[in-house]
Amino acid sequence: MSLGIVFLSEVFGTAMLTLLGCGVVANVALKGTKGNNGGFLMVTWGWGIAVFSGVYVAAMSGAHLNPAVTFGLLLNRKTEYAPGVPVDVASTLTYFGGELLGAFLGAVVMWLAYKQHFDASDTEPASQLAVFSTGPAIRSVPWNLITEIVGTFVLVFVILTFGGTPSGLGPLAVALLVVGIGVSLGGPTGYAINPARDLGPRIAHALLPMKGKGSSDWSYSWIPVVGPLVGGGLAGLVAAVVPIIATAAA
Amino acid sequence: MSLGIVFLSEVFGTAMLTLLGCGVVANVALKGTKGNNGGFLMVTWGWGIAVFSGVYVAAMSGAHLNPAVTFGLLLNRKTEYAPGVPVDVASTLTYFGGELLGAFLGAVVMWLAYKQHFDASDTEPASQLAVFSTGPAIRSVPWNLITEIVGTFVLVFVILTFGGTPSGLGPLAVALLVVGIGVSLGGPTGYAINPARDLGPRIAHALLPMKGKGSSDWSYSWIPVVGPLVGGGLAGLVAAVVPIIATAAA
Amino acid sequence: MSLGIVFLSEVFGTAMLTLLGCGVVANVALKGTKGNNGGFLMVTWGWGIAVFSGVYVAAMSGAHLNPAVTFGLLLNRKTEYAPGVPVDVASTLTYFGGELLGAFLGAVVMWLAYKQHFDASDTEPASQLAVFSTGPAIRSVPWNLITEIVGTFVLVFVILTFGGTPSGLGPLAVALLVVGIGVSLGGPTGYAINPARDLGPRIAHALLPMKGKGSSDWSYSWIPVVGPLVGGGLAGLVAAVVPIIATAAA
Amino acid sequence: MSLGIVFLSEVFGTAMLTLLGCGVVANVALKGTKGNNGGFLMVTWGWGIAVFSGVYVAAMSGAHLNPAVTFGLLLNRKTEYAPGVPVDVASTLTYFGGELLGAFLGAVVMWLAYKQHFDASDTEPASQLAVFSTGPAIRSVPWNLITEIVGTFVLVFVILTFGGTPSGLGPLAVALLVVGIGVSLGGPTGYAINPARDLGPRIAHALLPMKGKGSSDWSYSWIPVVGPLVGGGLAGLVAAVVPIIATAAA
Repeated sequence: MSLGIVFLSEVFGTAMLTLLGCGVVANVALKGTKGNNGGFLMVTWGWGIAVFSGVYVAAMSGAHLNPAVTFGLLLNRKTEYAPGVPVDVASTLTYFGGELLGAFLGAVVMWLAYKQHFDASDTEPASQLAVFSTGPAIRSVPWNLITEIVGTFVLVFVILTFGGTPSGLGPLAVALLVVGIGVSLGGPTGYAINPARDLGPRIAHALLPMKGKGSSDWSYSWIPVVGPLVGGGLAGLVAAVVPIIATAAA
Repeated sequence: MSLGIVFLSEVFGTAMLTLLGCGVVANVALKGTKGNNGGFLMVTWGWGIAVFSGVYVAAMSGAHLNPAVTFGLLLNRKTEYAPGVPVDVASTLTYFGGELLGAFLGAVVMWLAYKQHFDASDTEPASQLAVFSTGPAIRSVPWNLITEIVGTFVLVFVILTFGGTPSGLGPLAVALLVVGIGVSLGGPTGYAINPARDLGPRIAHALLPMKGKGSSDWSYSWIPVVGPLVGGGLAGLVAAVVPIIATAAA
Repeated sequence: MSLGIVFLSEVFGTAMLTLLGCGVVANVALKGTKGNNGGFLMVTWGWGIAVFSGVYVAAMSGAHLNPAVTFGLLLNRKTEYAPGVPVDVASTLTYFGGELLGAFLGAVVMWLAYKQHFDASDTEPASQLAVFSTGPAIRSVPWNLITEIVGTFVLVFVILTFGGTPSGLGPLAVALLVVGIGVSLGGPTGYAINPARDLGPRIAHALLPMKGKGSSDWSYSWIPVVGPLVGGGLAGLVAAVVPIIATAAA
Repeated sequence: MSLGIVFLSEVFGTAMLTLLGCGVVANVALKGTKGNNGGFLMVTWGWGIAVFSGVYVAAMSGAHLNPAVTFGLLLNRKTEYAPGVPVDVASTLTYFGGELLGAFLGAVVMWLAYKQHFDASDTEPASQLAVFSTGPAIRSVPWNLITEIVGTFVLVFVILTFGGTPSGLGPLAVALLVVGIGVSLGGPTGYAINPARDLGPRIAHALLPMKGKGSSDWSYSWIPVVGPLVGGGLAGLVAAVVPIIATAAA
């Protein structure tokens, strides 16, 4: 498969991810919507189904949708990112680029769908930013990093074990996993667990016009990039080591 | 398959869709029901399972249940709407007609099931209408149209990509997708994303007797018809173009 | 298969149904529990998974768990209730008996699990009864009957169409359907949609000791028996007629 | 398979179980998190998906994750705990040990992810303990035991019947079952239904530093150990007897 197709596939899939994912936060956080104040469980289902839909759309390229997944597969020593896509520098950068661009574009379309609610006179700047990007409940570089590392480790580690348990669930398995990480580990930082999902929409927030818009909180922005990459990479490494131990022990 | 069977199948399936779909709004919005004030997440699960059930009932005709789906398949240049049903003017009108009649009939049966709650002295006209048809949170022709276009694009585009990702989920995949569109993109307009689902029950609202009934809001009624058709058509076009680009790039 | 096995299988399965189903109402309705006031959506998931679990337990006998399902299959002119179980008077009565006894026993075990909460000084008689059996939001013989008929029609009609849409969902399909009927059609009467599910636990409520116990509301008790039987039977008839029409039209 | 691999597999899987399971309670019960006060339904989905994820991770060893499951399989007279793992004293102790250690380790990682919220000045000792281990709504040795016995009986009995109903659900079936037990039978004691899930995190609570930490409630700790073992063992016995009766009756 050409890298152009990989790029296009990841752009479409990751755009679907942030369109639906940021959309559910808009519905819950912005004033006057039908789902205003709909609760955290609704937010987590929204993100779960956002992943679900993105996986269908980007199936051709293996539907990474997330640089932490790509990085985890790299450190896991996979030889292919998807059928016919060898792991090398060019393909890795293609995934990273497609994921980031898609995440940005999906957030722009989401903004169009909720345009009037972003501009409503009673919308607060903090709610506007929360729709696009994550922020910590209690700010702390080490502890926020740890939370994002743990959450992304779970994501990538469980995905890497899916292959060993055949079932007919397909993309539903990863959707449920994302719901689970959200309800269980999303409490302290809002679970970015994906550098593109956080950075792409944050750039969109910075560029798009919104009445009464506040800061894009760039001082926090590197944590949901570095944390997920560390967590995903760690998961790739651990998942690669386990079978070696198992073979040695057998 | 004869067009009579297609018509009957779509009537039954779309009736199931609005019976359960409008039913969950009745349960949440009407006074004194067991599920009163049950929350937006419950509404979206209700519509998701309404689609799920309608798909089983109308499986024989491909379970479009939605003129925007039919129109998306048409612009996608499909040769068949369902096994043995060629795409032509007669079949297209048969789907449209069956979908609209079914959506109307399902709303009538829903009204029977909730009859006493529609007539309760403390039921407001706005709640009565909200059970049948969608309305915007903030009224605006262009922005309401855009929201419906985006939501329906997601619906039809992801459905058209289901084929490429085999899984045992069957109708569950589309049910989850509809839950996702609801929680994520339903905030501004209540996600009609289906001309029949909105227009059929609106006609039922206009015709059925209800104590203290108000306007059926015909001035808004064309938006949940035109928006979904544009969104579904666009999805059909884009999904047809993507493989052409992919082949050229390969 | 001997009718003794059918009886045992339906007893176990229907006991699982009311143990988990009445249990979720206890958790939401009784004072001081961990899930008190947990919302209608939680109740509907509880009943959905109650059916899900009961279907696994009673798989051997086809897992009717509900006289309205048995009656619907009878009027649908099925020749077997389950592989190796012919449709006749003896087998029909075996299903009815097993379903009713199981529903009674499951409610007794549920009562044991929640014993202390039934006897708490601030528990109201209406809440105690609501855990066991359904009651109408607005009492009316004809309208309550219609609501139960519509809900049970949906249950049995969609089950009878499952066969035509192969998927790997197994018991999950019927679980989701029951969640859907709950959220969408449960508003006016609390969706018995199963004579055994309502009558068995009502007998348990009448017999079991509870502090401050009130009436078992026998004047209403026939509606959740007759309504579901009419709805299920009607679904069996309509589902039998549809293929005949389809063949004639082809 | 060597017992070393079984041990490692159960450690990883059960750690995933309590990391996500205790995590959702932290999100709901601790002050200032994104999911604070998110409701009991969210807690039950969190535990359901925690089991779901743990089953994938520990698939190699049959994913018991729970001494009550191991004990139930033992009394069910299974010959293997997983393909290639014979049932004997050594393997039984290996499962018990791996489950307990994993449950402890998962709780420690969860504590890291929520560290700042455990130490927040307005966090109450009762909420801290509730994140780790269960406690009764109304304290009573016999009734709390009965509730745990009933809940665990349902868990192990339904799992033992899964085999007889083929479906493509894989680990989703047990996840839904755990959600169902939670919403339906979790009201009186918070549904430990797993000795390791309760005891492992309780030891973590006793050892880990937390600002303003209170008692680990050791006087209650034996109930969520003994109750689940009795319930799981009973389920194994009953499930072993049923086919014998069935054969005799046939």
